[in-house]
Amino acid sequence: MANYTKTNVGKENRVELHDLLALTGAEVSINLLPAGTSVPFVHAHKQNEEIYGILEGAGSAEIDGQTIALQEGDWIRIAPCAKRRFFAADHTALRYLCIQVKENSLTEYTATDAVIGETT
Amino acid sequence: MANYTKTNVGKENRVELHDLLALTGAEVSINLLPAGTSVPFVHAHKQNEEIYGILEGAGSAEIDGQTIALQEGDWIRIAPCAKRRFFAADHTALRYLCIQVKENSLTEYTATDAVIGETT
Repeated sequence: MANYTKTNVGKENRVELHDLLALTGAEVSINLLPAGTSVPFVHAHKQNEEIYGILEGAGSAEIDGQTIALQEGDWIRIAPCAKRRFFAADHTALRYLCIQVKENSLTEYTATDAVIGETT
Repeated sequence: MANYTKTNVGKENRVELHDLLALTGAEVSINLLPAGTSVPFVHAHKQNEEIYGILEGAGSAEIDGQTIALQEGDWIRIAPCAKRRFFAADHTALRYLCIQVKENSLTEYTATDAVIGETT
């Protein structure tokens, strides 16, 4: 069996990759909030850290009651317990990634986890 | 202390978010391979699953000797042991995300991990 899985996402309002790619260490979603809309609820997490990346557009996040302006290139880490809600700006959609991982689960990475091989 | 950390990434060739955002469950890098270039080595991992997302451009990946064409919107999960190397196309740069997480570390997510709150 191949040691990889692959999919392609288009312009859907939400795509969740966990089941599509058989992920075991994260859920990753690609999200589009149309201009003037928001996620309809506040949420927090039990175990999972969330990492949000803004791919296109602008908007804001409310985190524990504080409003944070968002633009393309912004990346945010939110602790599990924080209450969060995302909003698109009135004039433009907000396209963003959400990466959900178990807090404190990473034990090594990059230089300590990689095995560098031959180039040919 | 705020329950979030935030940064903004520009057009650098590589940005690593782990230390910038104090991540505990993932390393996330945003990478740009100029047209006609590649990562200069093959690598695998000891513990970590990698999830790659193509943000812009085109190119290819070699995974265990197999060549896979890549375009915007493609997402790939690669098992720790697989030998991988990424290439930009000759005519265009390849801009991509790499998410590194510990294989089998996610125990619950979304519906089972979320705590839905009040909207106001």
